Amino acid sequence: MIRAFTLLACASTIAATAVAQPAAPPAKPTTPSEVVAAAPPSAWRTISPDDLLVIDLKNGGRVVIQLAPAFAPVHVANIRALARGQWWDGAAVYRVQDNYVAQWGNNESTRPLPQGVAAKPPAEYTRPLKGLAVRPLGFSDPYAPAAGYASGWAIAYSPKGNWANLAHCYGSVGVGRDLSPDTGTGGELYAAIGHGPRHLDRNIALVGRVIEGIDRLSSLPRGTGDLGFYKERSQDLPITSARLASQLGAAERPSFQSMDTRSASFAEYLRLRANRKDAFYIRPAGGVDLCNAPVPVRRAP
Amino acid sequence: MIRAFTLLACASTIAATAVAQPAAPPAKPTTPSEVVAAAPPSAWRTISPDDLLVIDLKNGGRVVIQLAPAFAPVHVANIRALARGQWWDGAAVYRVQDNYVAQWGNNESTRPLPQGVAAKPPAEYTRPLKGLAVRPLGFSDPYAPAAGYASGWAIAYSPKGNWANLAHCYGSVGVGRDLSPDTGTGGELYAAIGHGPRHLDRNIALVGRVIEGIDRLSSLPRGTGDLGFYKERSQDLPITSARLASQLGAAERPSFQSMDTRSASFAEYLRLRANRKDAFYIRPAGGVDLCNAPVPVRRAP
Repeated sequence: MIRAFTLLACASTIAATAVAQPAAPPAKPTTPSEVVAAAPPSAWRTISPDDLLVIDLKNGGRVVIQLAPAFAPVHVANIRALARGQWWDGAAVYRVQDNYVAQWGNNESTRPLPQGVAAKPPAEYTRPLKGLAVRPLGFSDPYAPAAGYASGWAIAYSPKGNWANLAHCYGSVGVGRDLSPDTGTGGELYAAIGHGPRHLDRNIALVGRVIEGIDRLSSLPRGTGDLGFYKERSQDLPITSARLASQLGAAERPSFQSMDTRSASFAEYLRLRANRKDAFYIRPAGGVDLCNAPVPVRRAP
Repeated sequence: MIRAFTLLACASTIAATAVAQPAAPPAKPTTPSEVVAAAPPSAWRTISPDDLLVIDLKNGGRVVIQLAPAFAPVHVANIRALARGQWWDGAAVYRVQDNYVAQWGNNESTRPLPQGVAAKPPAEYTRPLKGLAVRPLGFSDPYAPAAGYASGWAIAYSPKGNWANLAHCYGSVGVGRDLSPDTGTGGELYAAIGHGPRHLDRNIALVGRVIEGIDRLSSLPRGTGDLGFYKERSQDLPITSARLASQLGAAERPSFQSMDTRSASFAEYLRLRANRKDAFYIRPAGGVDLCNAPVPVRRAP
């Protein structure tokens, strides 16, 4: 929240002195972003191109989603089959509700689903905790017995109940559904674009998160209909195509890495997220909520 | 996250049956929004027109901010003096950082402050807890010993330390500042447009919250410079005027009410926010975080 005019002044000062001074040795990282920048290659895991859904919008925007097959395998298989079947080509973003979600899809009631898509997948709102290597957040969570990270994802979980769920944070991607017990096929998806709507946890299937281009959804005009639906079809933002990265040619295929949540770098990142103290921050909170410590993701170097 | 095509189908069904059936007696509210709609007049408090800052943007948008003099009296006095001195006329929104803040202001370093503006206000990051009628949230908070509500505001607090602070939630408005110990005058303001940045609590002065038109800030294009600053001045969104509602003529003066956080309606709203169960929600969380239970605000009826 640095004031604009000071920031510009500081930038000039840095540029002016950078010429005169010799390079300083790398200092120990003291902010979360410095820890991310300094993390060694071993702290990063390359995301499989089968786990990347690349959505191109008619306005030139691109949104890249990382899928989470370890948490919603049947829904993710559906999404892969829908992408391979070019099912979203000509679909649209038709709902943007402020501080809540942007939602897109096609008309499942009239448009036949591609072969291999399960019309009635299991709920997949939770999975067993067993089998996950969990790093606890270390602070209490109002939505579950515990919160933390596993396999590069922010999760809530119950050791006693042996369940875990992906948490609804900014950028989380889930599956639109009708009233319970319907679970949705994956043909209609939403991304959270406001304060993490954690009350949706365990009530709907999460399938991944936006890792690039969330601003292409969060900055869209809000819908003026009920629940943020666009009132006129002319307001919809068409989707040109949605493909798995593995369907794209090598030259145009994006590659991403997410930080290994078991790594020392992630532990230090998490510690500093909960204890910010630098030239700007003077009173560290001594705590952090799950959605304010998102797992770092970057383009593969 | 109801699917679009089902929603439209449902709407038609409701319209068709509404003609044939007699009016049903009002049912007990079962969702937070039903509780808000059913709250009696005694559950609402009209906001003083001296506590409303009305910002008109050059693109036709209007943003209304409720000020919090009980928490940051000197900064709020500054903001009132800046509005009365027409200090923001010709200012601009110059920073929009995704999942963080939109920020606006004028050049304090070259533009003289109006008379009555304290150039170096006290920090006002906290106030004494004593004197506040607190309704506890009822669930743990990772950022403070306790969280809850007082005088219509979401707060974090410490009974032992006798302090309380406004919490950084979606829509919260704070004062841009330079590095510590500077606190900012109030001439540069920001609004949170993403997941509540609670780590800023007690590190910067909050002065209020956007109660109407936050979508006019949250849907702006994101800045591509460092920290979301717009790179070119041509990208700035000019502010036409910023006035207190009390400066506006009666005909154009907006009037708002916020829910009394001591009321039974608010208690029930809070209970249901933490325990959603209806045709859509099947597994209530049994908890809620402070920023996911914002104090209801409405236009005065």
